[in-house]
Amino acid sequence: MRLCSHNTAFCREDFIRFFERKVFRTIEKFQMFSPQSRILVAVSGGKDSMALLHFLRKHDFNVDGYYLHLGLGEHSDRSLKKVERFRDRSGIHVIVEQSSDLLKMDVNEAARRLRRPVCAVCGSLKRYLMNRAAVKYDVLATGHNLDDEAATLFGNLLHWQTGYIRRQSAVLEEKGELVRKVKPLVLMSEYETAHYAFFEGLDSVTAKCPWSKNATSIRYKAVLNDLEFRMPGTKERFLKGFLTERESIFSLSADREPELSPCVSCGYLTSAGTCSVCRMRERLKET
Amino acid sequence: MRLCSHNTAFCREDFIRFFERKVFRTIEKFQMFSPQSRILVAVSGGKDSMALLHFLRKHDFNVDGYYLHLGLGEHSDRSLKKVERFRDRSGIHVIVEQSSDLLKMDVNEAARRLRRPVCAVCGSLKRYLMNRAAVKYDVLATGHNLDDEAATLFGNLLHWQTGYIRRQSAVLEEKGELVRKVKPLVLMSEYETAHYAFFEGLDSVTAKCPWSKNATSIRYKAVLNDLEFRMPGTKERFLKGFLTERESIFSLSADREPELSPCVSCGYLTSAGTCSVCRMRERLKET
Repeated sequence: MRLCSHNTAFCREDFIRFFERKVFRTIEKFQMFSPQSRILVAVSGGKDSMALLHFLRKHDFNVDGYYLHLGLGEHSDRSLKKVERFRDRSGIHVIVEQSSDLLKMDVNEAARRLRRPVCAVCGSLKRYLMNRAAVKYDVLATGHNLDDEAATLFGNLLHWQTGYIRRQSAVLEEKGELVRKVKPLVLMSEYETAHYAFFEGLDSVTAKCPWSKNATSIRYKAVLNDLEFRMPGTKERFLKGFLTERESIFSLSADREPELSPCVSCGYLTSAGTCSVCRMRERLKET
Repeated sequence: MRLCSHNTAFCREDFIRFFERKVFRTIEKFQMFSPQSRILVAVSGGKDSMALLHFLRKHDFNVDGYYLHLGLGEHSDRSLKKVERFRDRSGIHVIVEQSSDLLKMDVNEAARRLRRPVCAVCGSLKRYLMNRAAVKYDVLATGHNLDDEAATLFGNLLHWQTGYIRRQSAVLEEKGELVRKVKPLVLMSEYETAHYAFFEGLDSVTAKCPWSKNATSIRYKAVLNDLEFRMPGTKERFLKGFLTERESIFSLSADREPELSPCVSCGYLTSAGTCSVCRMRERLKET
């Protein structure tokens, strides 16, 4: 395979070695976790999270998976099947939860009743349930890749979402019961991760979430890929420069961060008195 | 004319009023200059600088023009003709200088002998001569527009050129003999300025500098225009957000700025002992 960003080409074996070495270096560089850490990997059934779970297991990390079934129709069912097959083959323990257990309805229906965008409801739920599931672990790892993170950064810079810019990083430290979060694939492009998953024979869902079609992040990814094509290495330099220099570039004083206290209803840390998910549940009872 | 970024359309008169009011507001917002200030406008013969000079004269500011003939073949000759015609019609005093008076050769030839990119030699010379010419004025105004500045910012963010990011602003304060610099059109898009110049009957050079063809800034402008097309107003929000919030977003401590002292040869402020233009001239004598 050709890798223009590094001006080189690899055979299968060499690429796998190159990819894994780079992930190891990323884990070390950002001090994500140690060989002893208990790691929970959030898996969606897509190539990135499957590749991450596979990589960690392959290298004998102490790892479990977490799959959240969001009830987004056929897409969720198909993803779950891929995850179950992967679990059966690999023997990795994967926790499976249904968001409907909490809301008593699927995400689409909840969003409709709450008159909120599906992605907002889904995001809140995911964060909430993942944080809850990860309480017994040292760290929650997600499969966010270079393309995801560079597009997020680009969008946040374009609109000067300074709160989000301050919080974007390869590692989010723990805060009370909110577990430490890490992104080991943060410097691996979608192209690289897709090749790794393919070369390692991983079977993953290729379809995107049906709600992501018009996401602006897709536009930002396209823009960055266009620049990458003309100036190979641009995406990685852009994100790596930010991740390694962010503390010297930005005014990141901690006093700007909101104070968190336990939700009066469920105990989840929140900046409001009642957390967003409990507020959602209350409102859904009224509808 | 349609103006998607403001979701509106204008007739000729209304657009001119809209444009001029916006420039006035920009001048006030960034406290660029007062009605009494003596202003020197750097003119290239292109629509932006001509529109700026025209606007300032129309509203009775105390303004002169400055044209630097860089000896870039036919392009420079044609630009000079446009500027001279504008001067003769408007009665504005325009200082005309030749860069070859300083280097004893044109910029192309100097760059070839110095084995440096033409744009680097041209940039150094322009800054040097403009600063020298502006000594007798309160402020040097340039025609940089929204597209120029947004593309510059985008490029600097993409490569985390933190020094450049820290220095990019609508106003650069004076420093010793280096005159205060302002960009009154910084929030006017190329599209808006082109329409203003057209509606006001200004005759300007439409050809770009022959050396700008492969400039990466053109690529960045294209990317931003693509986003602007899909999300009208993006460019202005991006740049305005930066210009107004930059001090709270970035660590802009002054102690990072290099100390300046007079060039041992010509007295121009420089961070090295001998300024870049004097070094160029010395090296050219040796070739």
